[in-house]
Amino acid sequence: MTQDPVRLAAMANAVRALSMDAVQAANSGHPGMPMGMADVATVLWSDYLKFDPADPAWPDRDRFVLSAGHGSMLIYALLHLSGYAQPTMDDIRNFRQLGSVCAGHPENFLVPGVEATTGPLGQGLAMAVGMAVAERHLNAQFGDDLVDHRTWVIAGDGCLMEGVNHEAIGLAGHLKLGRMIVLWDDNRITIDGSTDLSTSEDVAARYAAAGWHVAACNGHDVAAIRSAIDEAVADHRPSLIACRTVIGKGAPNLQGTSKTHGSPLGAAEIALVRETLGWTAPAFEIPENVAADWRATGTRGGEAHATWHARSQAAGKGAEFAARMRGELPQLADWAGYKAQVAAERPKMATRKASEAALSVLTQAVPALVGGSADLTGSNNTKTPSTTSMSADDYAGRYVNYGIREFGMAAAMNGMALHGGVIPYGGTFLVFSDYSRPAIRLGALQQVRAIHVMTHDSIGLGEDGPTHQPVEHLASLRVIPDLLVMRPADTLETAECWELALQNADRPSLLALTRQNLPAVRFDAAENLCAKGAYLLKPATADRRVQLIATGSEVALALEVQAALEGDGIGADVISMPCAELFMEQPAAYRTGLIGGDGVLRVSIEAGATFGWERFTGLDGLNIGIDRFGASAPAEELFARFGLTAEAIVPQIMAKLG
Amino acid sequence: MTQDPVRLAAMANAVRALSMDAVQAANSGHPGMPMGMADVATVLWSDYLKFDPADPAWPDRDRFVLSAGHGSMLIYALLHLSGYAQPTMDDIRNFRQLGSVCAGHPENFLVPGVEATTGPLGQGLAMAVGMAVAERHLNAQFGDDLVDHRTWVIAGDGCLMEGVNHEAIGLAGHLKLGRMIVLWDDNRITIDGSTDLSTSEDVAARYAAAGWHVAACNGHDVAAIRSAIDEAVADHRPSLIACRTVIGKGAPNLQGTSKTHGSPLGAAEIALVRETLGWTAPAFEIPENVAADWRATGTRGGEAHATWHARSQAAGKGAEFAARMRGELPQLADWAGYKAQVAAERPKMATRKASEAALSVLTQAVPALVGGSADLTGSNNTKTPSTTSMSADDYAGRYVNYGIREFGMAAAMNGMALHGGVIPYGGTFLVFSDYSRPAIRLGALQQVRAIHVMTHDSIGLGEDGPTHQPVEHLASLRVIPDLLVMRPADTLETAECWELALQNADRPSLLALTRQNLPAVRFDAAENLCAKGAYLLKPATADRRVQLIATGSEVALALEVQAALEGDGIGADVISMPCAELFMEQPAAYRTGLIGGDGVLRVSIEAGATFGWERFTGLDGLNIGIDRFGASAPAEELFARFGLTAEAIVPQIMAKLG
Repeated sequence: MTQDPVRLAAMANAVRALSMDAVQAANSGHPGMPMGMADVATVLWSDYLKFDPADPAWPDRDRFVLSAGHGSMLIYALLHLSGYAQPTMDDIRNFRQLGSVCAGHPENFLVPGVEATTGPLGQGLAMAVGMAVAERHLNAQFGDDLVDHRTWVIAGDGCLMEGVNHEAIGLAGHLKLGRMIVLWDDNRITIDGSTDLSTSEDVAARYAAAGWHVAACNGHDVAAIRSAIDEAVADHRPSLIACRTVIGKGAPNLQGTSKTHGSPLGAAEIALVRETLGWTAPAFEIPENVAADWRATGTRGGEAHATWHARSQAAGKGAEFAARMRGELPQLADWAGYKAQVAAERPKMATRKASEAALSVLTQAVPALVGGSADLTGSNNTKTPSTTSMSADDYAGRYVNYGIREFGMAAAMNGMALHGGVIPYGGTFLVFSDYSRPAIRLGALQQVRAIHVMTHDSIGLGEDGPTHQPVEHLASLRVIPDLLVMRPADTLETAECWELALQNADRPSLLALTRQNLPAVRFDAAENLCAKGAYLLKPATADRRVQLIATGSEVALALEVQAALEGDGIGADVISMPCAELFMEQPAAYRTGLIGGDGVLRVSIEAGATFGWERFTGLDGLNIGIDRFGASAPAEELFARFGLTAEAIVPQIMAKLG
Repeated sequence: MTQDPVRLAAMANAVRALSMDAVQAANSGHPGMPMGMADVATVLWSDYLKFDPADPAWPDRDRFVLSAGHGSMLIYALLHLSGYAQPTMDDIRNFRQLGSVCAGHPENFLVPGVEATTGPLGQGLAMAVGMAVAERHLNAQFGDDLVDHRTWVIAGDGCLMEGVNHEAIGLAGHLKLGRMIVLWDDNRITIDGSTDLSTSEDVAARYAAAGWHVAACNGHDVAAIRSAIDEAVADHRPSLIACRTVIGKGAPNLQGTSKTHGSPLGAAEIALVRETLGWTAPAFEIPENVAADWRATGTRGGEAHATWHARSQAAGKGAEFAARMRGELPQLADWAGYKAQVAAERPKMATRKASEAALSVLTQAVPALVGGSADLTGSNNTKTPSTTSMSADDYAGRYVNYGIREFGMAAAMNGMALHGGVIPYGGTFLVFSDYSRPAIRLGALQQVRAIHVMTHDSIGLGEDGPTHQPVEHLASLRVIPDLLVMRPADTLETAECWELALQNADRPSLLALTRQNLPAVRFDAAENLCAKGAYLLKPATADRRVQLIATGSEVALALEVQAALEGDGIGADVISMPCAELFMEQPAAYRTGLIGGDGVLRVSIEAGATFGWERFTGLDGLNIGIDRFGASAPAEELFARFGLTAEAIVPQIMAKLG
């Protein structure tokens, strides 16, 4: 690699030129950050980052996360210049246009070299913590020869001000993730203007308080950047490097101001940048000597990859590791037996406990499963004999005590899943899905297998009252695209839902589980019926006039209602719908065959908001639910208070039938 | 007040006894925190807190927030013992039972002395920041004689670990809210066990880094507690006092362990507590000498109240201040004129700009309005000529630069509204409502007037792509109980929605506003039609066969669709539905009169998830929307790509009509 400061400056200017020209062509975007961090990124890419453009999926590559995702042109420029197949120069030319992989914010599902989708501030860094956790964990399991890489982050002031930053760095400091290094674009500018407008924080002191090593450098001085990175690499703690930069560096009239943050510089200023930097190449053209220096950064990585390949082959365990990294599930030897046993024993059990029982089998069979809870282990029932605690002294542990950090947990889970080699699951109360929601969404967008275990899923939690009782949460989660929301009705359905969560490798799942005991409602384990999303649990015996559609704890209630109706000679089906999303993916014939029919009254029963249920019950149906905040009282009294009893429901059905 | 340590210890033991006995009687609850913090709370209540049990609404009272809301028995005991009318001993006896005001977590709408609903961790402290902001702001506007009080918080490890804590203390430190004092229950225990399991943070150093003063004390030593509080009161910065306590203090076998956190102690241990503490009174009985000492704490406050009353009467401005504290709106002198002008001028304008125009009039007319943005001021259009920036040097400013702290902003807004005297509004992008969602929910539960200005409300924001494009957000917000979600269609509707947000004093509102320009669709300002939630904007001229129901930016699209249909001789109504919640509150006759009719095809059009629209369109209707993540491209191309054009919609309607 070149150490020549003049050549490195030219490499950085190539990044600046591509960034400002692409934003100008798109007539939208964020030139300030890429121009400000171009020098730092060039040093990182040239001398430190371990990557192979020929194989973006090389398991032992360093992970690089552009947490300040609005500066997306930085990573597009870096990937293109260093020799990745994507993005091409045409992609960059079409930055922010329909069909270009160069989206406004970097998307992991569009560009293989993009490790994580970023833009929602703070989450990139928080996902990087998860990647660093996965790295240390796999290192502990597979050894240095297979897993030995760093996690790098470029973050801005926004990433550091967001609350999730506190959670993320607290976890990283506690777990002593010394191979994680954050390069902070310390430009003292936010969208509204100077950072002085809204913050007086001593960032370095805060990171130090969280157990981090902190260094600083002039972000435009190559030697200073190297020195700071060397210091960080040598330190055993996670590191923050405050890179003092000028936003929009190179734009003589605008640099150092928020005007460069989120708008094109304009043709006149761009001409002045070219003059200032001595950059004579036209837009989207890179002089061959600069291009060659950039390509050399990728060559270095190819050599490292080849060395790793030889070493990892010699180390053994290579096939197992490769399968883990591909996300393959092992054979679940005891699984069919477990389900058959459940079907036979018909336990009366809370589904959170049923989840623990399923997990006990699964965590033994699937070593990739790494669990955890946001300080509700005993309530979420997420810990099993196979999952001992992970700590800075024992990264081989498979259970993360995430602390009271729901959002940080969910973001870390996304990062672990993105890293690969582990399948993360983590628990909290369903009501606190609101806290982790931004990461649940970003996991769905990124198509990762993160499994959210959400217990205490209704007023059934009882006395803790409305702050802790989810009401609107099931509906609000079902509306997130590409997320599977599962609400099993008993121990067997819980096992089936866990199986589905594992099988759905390219989307997150969320299991909503009860605190309270539930009777068994399904007694046949031959087929995973939850896979269809909804199924006929118990058909009408009399002439069918009613369909009862219920989820989770209300399936047993639907069976009670059915019994009462049939006692009056009114035939009623009971349909269990553990996962509306999977049901909507079934063939139309299955869907219309299951729900509907002339003159049949459709009734939904769920201890949550009725919002959205009309898509199954129609305007003439009946939606039994709770469209207000809950209350504090023992669970049984609350179900009565809110009309979730057969006594309260049957008369409403009779009235509808007329 | 008594300074006798023995008598103070007995007062604290009264809190311990009530807490453990109430939890035992309820067979659920959290005795550990109240028992651990009983000594600190007794000192605070006896010597420092300014309150008058006879008037829980006294405007100049100190605000006390139990951020660790699970320890609700602490505040119930304190309020009862010090002489508030609520809770009564019977309420306490019925702790966590249906109908008791002593809910599992303290609810501001049940007990007048409870300043804020707490339980979702971190938010109590973050709301207290808003209260402290409101106090300094009103002090700057009305002077020391009317407003001169402190804000006190009791917080636990959970409150400090949550991400929102970082945002809250950053804002408080930046604004130098020196009259805010946090008493941290530093018991080193979380639900999962020792705090060592999940955190290694130096909390004191972190608070110092955020500009806070930090003190520490033995939380069971009255003199040490006093000394630390004296130090905090004297300091000009916000203060954190680390009160080193033993969780469950007094329970000989269980204290200091997580077993006391969230379960009854059990009859045997409770007997041992009585023995250990020398507490001989039966459950729910307080010895008269102890009761008298407690009542005296309230008497002190009554005297302070009387002094304040005399002083505030003399100061003038009393009537204006009282009206402000009652939340009354002044006459909006120019408002009708503004709306009439808009109706006449028919501007083509983004609704975010329309919001700015409305706010320019309203912030001038309503001095209680205090605005802000989470660092998107220029994008949210939330700043007006009347709202200059608030800072530590000028608390009279009416605009808070919240920084990149969406959740902290929304929580602070709740606190400001709870404090009274100000009407907070704050801006971010609609997609980031996910970040502030836990506070939006808690605002709805608490019935406060906080106004969330959420711009960039659809794919219409264009190039920033799916991370920034709300899709599921409107539906997910509509399902929150007691929240008004408003999506105005043009400049006039935006003005009407702002008017409604101000008029709805007991619930929060959220305005979803466009980035892109919209044509005017309403030309008559005589009546606030948005107040009905939905209304017939333009009736069919031909024989009506279709109803088009749209919101916000899609109302203009619905008018295009209408024109195309009527051109083909198919009559179609266009219904604008700016607020589904208000529509659902209209009389049934209005609702069924507006939407429905034999053989009429109902079509919803909204650039977001279709989830929930079936409640208006039925199973036979048509729902035009976006049920996937968005993409990065110019807005017009995205509307075409996702089928939100008349060209794409009209054929679907024709096909449905057959």
